[in-house]
Amino acid sequence: MEESKGVVKHVLLTKFKEGISENQIEELTKGYAKLVDLIEPMKSFHWGKDVSIENLHQGFTHIFESTFESMEGVAEYVAHPAHVDFANLFLSHVEKVIVFDYKPTTVRV
Amino acid sequence: MEESKGVVKHVLLTKFKEGISENQIEELTKGYAKLVDLIEPMKSFHWGKDVSIENLHQGFTHIFESTFESMEGVAEYVAHPAHVDFANLFLSHVEKVIVFDYKPTTVRV
Repeated sequence: MEESKGVVKHVLLTKFKEGISENQIEELTKGYAKLVDLIEPMKSFHWGKDVSIENLHQGFTHIFESTFESMEGVAEYVAHPAHVDFANLFLSHVEKVIVFDYKPTTVRV
Repeated sequence: MEESKGVVKHVLLTKFKEGISENQIEELTKGYAKLVDLIEPMKSFHWGKDVSIENLHQGFTHIFESTFESMEGVAEYVAHPAHVDFANLFLSHVEKVIVFDYKPTTVRV
């Protein structure tokens, strides 16, 4: 099994609080995306809504995935004032959240 | 916000049951990876262990991500006998699981 050198995927799953508007979610998503420009080790960002058909999404409705050059880069991001400010805002709007970091690993079978 | 045309990411987060061995997890991971060869619309697969530092992973320890060419491709995968057999085996070993499908969308800010 081959672990990619250095790259770390940072995955956030969430269910927003009831009453949040689509406009507020869009603003939060844009705020998340802007971190790419503000925090050097954050290399890319994408997001999406759950479209699963197996009914195993456990109520989570949105995913946000960003990519970092290393675990040191994630640590720099976590401590960065722009992230701290955004995280405080973002987390005030969520009912539940999971944040999961991993080094993508492929398998030769 | 730009949704990629067609591609669907299929994300599975899990915590395996206590007592499962590293060897069993490796066998399950290889079995998951083999589905790429067995189910045509499943285009790629990678996995990883949680290395997060924010303590928001909610006990989840492993992630498995596969990519499909479309939602129709995911439906074909879900119904495929090779997937059904593997899912029954895999799910018998997990304490909890989330399966989340989404169309990756980028944001221009």
